[in-house]
Amino acid sequence: MLPGSSIGQRLVLTSFGESHGKSIGAVLDGCPAGLELDEKDIQKMLDFRRPGQNLISTQRKEGDVVEIISGVFRGHTTGAPITMVIWNSDQKSKDYENLKTKLRPGHSDYPAMTKYNHYNDHRGGGRFSGRLTATHVMGGAIARKLLKVTLGVETNSFTSQIGKIKMEKKFNSKMVNSIYKNEVRCPEIKTAKIMRENILNARKKGDSLGGIIESVTINVPVGLGEPIFSSLESDLSKAIFSIPSVKGVEFGSGFQGSELFGSENNDLYVVKRGKIVTETNRSGGILGGISNGMPITMRIAFKPASSIAQKQKTVDIKTKKETILQVKGRHDPCVVPRAPPVVDSLVALTIADHALLSGAIKPVL
Amino acid sequence: MLPGSSIGQRLVLTSFGESHGKSIGAVLDGCPAGLELDEKDIQKMLDFRRPGQNLISTQRKEGDVVEIISGVFRGHTTGAPITMVIWNSDQKSKDYENLKTKLRPGHSDYPAMTKYNHYNDHRGGGRFSGRLTATHVMGGAIARKLLKVTLGVETNSFTSQIGKIKMEKKFNSKMVNSIYKNEVRCPEIKTAKIMRENILNARKKGDSLGGIIESVTINVPVGLGEPIFSSLESDLSKAIFSIPSVKGVEFGSGFQGSELFGSENNDLYVVKRGKIVTETNRSGGILGGISNGMPITMRIAFKPASSIAQKQKTVDIKTKKETILQVKGRHDPCVVPRAPPVVDSLVALTIADHALLSGAIKPVL
Amino acid sequence: MLPGSSIGQRLVLTSFGESHGKSIGAVLDGCPAGLELDEKDIQKMLDFRRPGQNLISTQRKEGDVVEIISGVFRGHTTGAPITMVIWNSDQKSKDYENLKTKLRPGHSDYPAMTKYNHYNDHRGGGRFSGRLTATHVMGGAIARKLLKVTLGVETNSFTSQIGKIKMEKKFNSKMVNSIYKNEVRCPEIKTAKIMRENILNARKKGDSLGGIIESVTINVPVGLGEPIFSSLESDLSKAIFSIPSVKGVEFGSGFQGSELFGSENNDLYVVKRGKIVTETNRSGGILGGISNGMPITMRIAFKPASSIAQKQKTVDIKTKKETILQVKGRHDPCVVPRAPPVVDSLVALTIADHALLSGAIKPVL
Amino acid sequence: MLPGSSIGQRLVLTSFGESHGKSIGAVLDGCPAGLELDEKDIQKMLDFRRPGQNLISTQRKEGDVVEIISGVFRGHTTGAPITMVIWNSDQKSKDYENLKTKLRPGHSDYPAMTKYNHYNDHRGGGRFSGRLTATHVMGGAIARKLLKVTLGVETNSFTSQIGKIKMEKKFNSKMVNSIYKNEVRCPEIKTAKIMRENILNARKKGDSLGGIIESVTINVPVGLGEPIFSSLESDLSKAIFSIPSVKGVEFGSGFQGSELFGSENNDLYVVKRGKIVTETNRSGGILGGISNGMPITMRIAFKPASSIAQKQKTVDIKTKKETILQVKGRHDPCVVPRAPPVVDSLVALTIADHALLSGAIKPVL
Repeated sequence: MLPGSSIGQRLVLTSFGESHGKSIGAVLDGCPAGLELDEKDIQKMLDFRRPGQNLISTQRKEGDVVEIISGVFRGHTTGAPITMVIWNSDQKSKDYENLKTKLRPGHSDYPAMTKYNHYNDHRGGGRFSGRLTATHVMGGAIARKLLKVTLGVETNSFTSQIGKIKMEKKFNSKMVNSIYKNEVRCPEIKTAKIMRENILNARKKGDSLGGIIESVTINVPVGLGEPIFSSLESDLSKAIFSIPSVKGVEFGSGFQGSELFGSENNDLYVVKRGKIVTETNRSGGILGGISNGMPITMRIAFKPASSIAQKQKTVDIKTKKETILQVKGRHDPCVVPRAPPVVDSLVALTIADHALLSGAIKPVL
Repeated sequence: MLPGSSIGQRLVLTSFGESHGKSIGAVLDGCPAGLELDEKDIQKMLDFRRPGQNLISTQRKEGDVVEIISGVFRGHTTGAPITMVIWNSDQKSKDYENLKTKLRPGHSDYPAMTKYNHYNDHRGGGRFSGRLTATHVMGGAIARKLLKVTLGVETNSFTSQIGKIKMEKKFNSKMVNSIYKNEVRCPEIKTAKIMRENILNARKKGDSLGGIIESVTINVPVGLGEPIFSSLESDLSKAIFSIPSVKGVEFGSGFQGSELFGSENNDLYVVKRGKIVTETNRSGGILGGISNGMPITMRIAFKPASSIAQKQKTVDIKTKKETILQVKGRHDPCVVPRAPPVVDSLVALTIADHALLSGAIKPVL
Repeated sequence: MLPGSSIGQRLVLTSFGESHGKSIGAVLDGCPAGLELDEKDIQKMLDFRRPGQNLISTQRKEGDVVEIISGVFRGHTTGAPITMVIWNSDQKSKDYENLKTKLRPGHSDYPAMTKYNHYNDHRGGGRFSGRLTATHVMGGAIARKLLKVTLGVETNSFTSQIGKIKMEKKFNSKMVNSIYKNEVRCPEIKTAKIMRENILNARKKGDSLGGIIESVTINVPVGLGEPIFSSLESDLSKAIFSIPSVKGVEFGSGFQGSELFGSENNDLYVVKRGKIVTETNRSGGILGGISNGMPITMRIAFKPASSIAQKQKTVDIKTKKETILQVKGRHDPCVVPRAPPVVDSLVALTIADHALLSGAIKPVL
Repeated sequence: MLPGSSIGQRLVLTSFGESHGKSIGAVLDGCPAGLELDEKDIQKMLDFRRPGQNLISTQRKEGDVVEIISGVFRGHTTGAPITMVIWNSDQKSKDYENLKTKLRPGHSDYPAMTKYNHYNDHRGGGRFSGRLTATHVMGGAIARKLLKVTLGVETNSFTSQIGKIKMEKKFNSKMVNSIYKNEVRCPEIKTAKIMRENILNARKKGDSLGGIIESVTINVPVGLGEPIFSSLESDLSKAIFSIPSVKGVEFGSGFQGSELFGSENNDLYVVKRGKIVTETNRSGGILGGISNGMPITMRIAFKPASSIAQKQKTVDIKTKKETILQVKGRHDPCVVPRAPPVVDSLVALTIADHALLSGAIKPVL
């Protein structure tokens, strides 16, 4: 949708706010009437995303307390747009900070200043800050509850790789409960420990790490997605790439599947308990852009965080001279552990949107 | 956009038609007035996508001759929607064929029949056929010319991997002219030969291969893309995932970048000939979802073609019994060599759309 | 929707073509699968709009034979976009006609030439021609059948005024069958005769007449329309104002209702046969933008046709000098009698769109 | 745009809130960066709409103080979405009020309760309240300033009729300054007085009045609007019909023009000071849906307010029995005098949207 702050067709999330402005927030329009909802439903997912939770994330404390300011009445959604706000607590302190002119490598500074002719709010990344993903979670928490309550759909994501450290085993449904039992959100405990150490080491060196999030969504009805340009893959990838650090998305066997023969990659149909299913799930639950009832599986590549404490060569946009930059402040050495609720949110928003479009979810519960 | 047959915001492509229906075609709305255009501009790109060109693609002969039926007057676009049609020559022969009920593994048969309660045109994949990518090329050829004429933007893509065979060198701009000099569209001639042999071998075994397409777009102005949900990455990936066999998309260093440290992955700014550029381009020309003036680079994973000649286990959707299927007909053992014009088209449509949105291209030339 | 050739949200009509180009046509995307459909369903409504039917309309003969070129299979819609084309028979003769530079009063010539810098196809009004309303009928005929089959909704419109000649009685449901029994489409036979004479007189004088169409839609379920910006009134008026000559739209008591007291204009609720209805229908079936189950009634003002045979003062856009223009060719002295099928089409498209959005019509029949 | 709370294509206003909820507010996305803006720009227009200003409007006191909570930095717009909120001061008092079940004639109660299965917030009309038009003004004040600063476009509207009392003279540009010099916003002082008395009389009788607002917009560039479905008339009427009490919209000579001959209604072109203009302006500044440079003129019919103090016959939706209702509370005997800022807002939003689409306003000032 046009100017870029909204996503969805029947269930539309509009995100607003800046990292160091007065507030960040979201409007979710199109949510069916009659869903039980209060702030706690949203706060719970926000808390999993919040910074300052532990040693491996940024030490900034952002309260991130959500307030619903429209669309909920007597504990239920009304069919009207649901507006949610987080008030930024410490924004005033930096109001008079000078405009930064040294371009931070890996950040949006250069294209943003050029695009907006320096009118953009540059403080803390402004509109481009990863902090804005909290607005995705506001809408996503509602979509996720909606999917669960109406269709039994469950979407879960987890850290499967940090830097070069990968999970040893393939994810299975029993691992779901282990995801949030450690700080890196990796359901394989021993791997999680190594990941944690690697992140702490990167922090010590003033460096950062990237990684991979995997997302698994079960109980999706057969038939969601519209052929050609609103395929589930098109709409899911569009949503996921709105996360600042994401640089790759794949479904099912993805890039690795490109190396297989058709006879190896095709998922063969069988009947199990009277239901048509596939023996394997290399398609990631999507064929021809449409859900086939198998789990929807994605792998999502996050680049290492661009803010590092090391000195970096760069250019001052004002003088157009080369210079040296040392980024200060408290930054995440790795954003991946905070990403699972964000991924879950965008997946849930997209699937709920398609479930509404196809009539699988009704406009009034 | 909603029911799924349209893409774009200011430059909108609507695709129509089915593989074995009367026609396939496209309406491109929002193209600026005053662009010189005739059928040859489009036919040239369509010919590169057309099947039956050589041994490694399907032996079906689809004339694929495009006819412009609206929107062009005295050799120029008028600002009105441009409608283009390809008439399917041999559709009548199969009109009375019985409905296929054996589900083809890897195809959309099962979700499509379920979604549309068997009303969908199943012949040759119907609406889900790879043949529909010709409609992307119709619009894309115009967008590509528009970008070239107005901004000097050039988008080129090529085969960089078939099965496990990969190009040895990194692509550079001198290779552009070699892309279409061989059947696999790989600009590295000796690798192209091996790829070709591998495809022919797969065909002999009744099997198929996948591969990877890389896309490089140069001269993109700084500042295209809208933050958050209409980022260039969001909109490019949405467009690319509309290609039936695509299962993965990455920008710049992509999945591999997830394994690097921030200090390794960040692109440092320097000044070259008075212009701010980055030394490396691991971001793939996009920061914060906005173009930074560097080449936009993508890698796109294609699964091996689902139609293979080998017998496969499957289910008959009518009887809900397991059975054996042997797909007949002339199929591509590998669709990757036909994909570069399709990728170029979707990239060009997306970038032209954003160039119009941002005012970089005017509504009248 | 953006560049202007599409309307609808869940059921989207895209119109293409020019008055004297190769073709005019439409793509209807989002129509549910399983609706019985062939060309006859559409041709019937097109024939009521077609020029050259009788003395009071233009004497041009436009065959206006519609051809469905996608989206219908074995006599039913498939869920894929339905594309329909009318081939313009006589377009070549005028291909080389010189660009007209004398601005026709009341026509789009001046703003169109300015907007498109003269690249627009000016022949016969080009994209702005009333002829394009045939593309609305293509989509509308399908929407109207869909509404009738699924919900029993019937939309009918008729001529209630030509120039200063008005129907004497208020329309009632028994009059429906009389609408198409005379050339002016006025269900009051004696008034129709006077209207016809007035039109013929205007023609003789080289002049033209306007008039008013009334539209009545019954059996609309309670609850269609979305509050605020997608109210039924918003979306219906948007659709209706796409008809070239329309200059006014009112619902229910409309402008006249502005002169009443609230105690006179309010419709009081009563129970009839167990159903909640209103005693009167001054709201035109819409309250708060949402249907209330009463007939949806609109009145639509058409200006007198701009093409008249009399000499008119105007300006030559090339020389920027004042000059005299005499429009030649065969024109409608009054377009109103051809408008009812167009109004019915746009009303049906809008209501069907909202019925799909709200779940009142399912995506598969 | 879909679920109904948003309007616009390139400049998108999203409205949220309910009459007696915590807040009402709006997000304006797509506003160019670099526009000077603070709360005062918006408050000024809001104050003209605010209730309780004088005797002829409701005696409720709604502070209606707007707060900008995103999108403005150092006194300028940033290109990011601008979010504005008004906090509803007295909402808590009614939280536990019983659900009203007696349907108020003329209000949305019946269709809303049916549509949302009683989950809608019914207090004070909830989402359907005229109070929500304050959210239009929030966005409209910005659009109006943007148009003025960039193109010199000025949009003004005024009360031309209350009940049966009409202005005697035609509006001319000198009257602009008189609009806000009286409570009814009628620039003809002696007529304003009679209108005021009529409203006070209606109030005394427990009754209400409707009326007509006229809107005049000058300095609109030639060429705004997109042919067919995004004509200026289509988009303006869609916007205007989002105002709760509007039941009719006409452009230029409108309904009255339907009674004229073409030779009377056509506006003839002449050259004035080197510029092509029309002698008269019966088209209301729009030809073929595109602006022709003449003032855009509209007349808008408001029904008499539905809330009246008199007893009315109605139905209890719970018991489905007929009953008597007497609406209490402080209501406007006539909403028309509060409507001009709302009309100006929706006109400005629509024209600014088209100016951005056509490139007449740049994305960065």
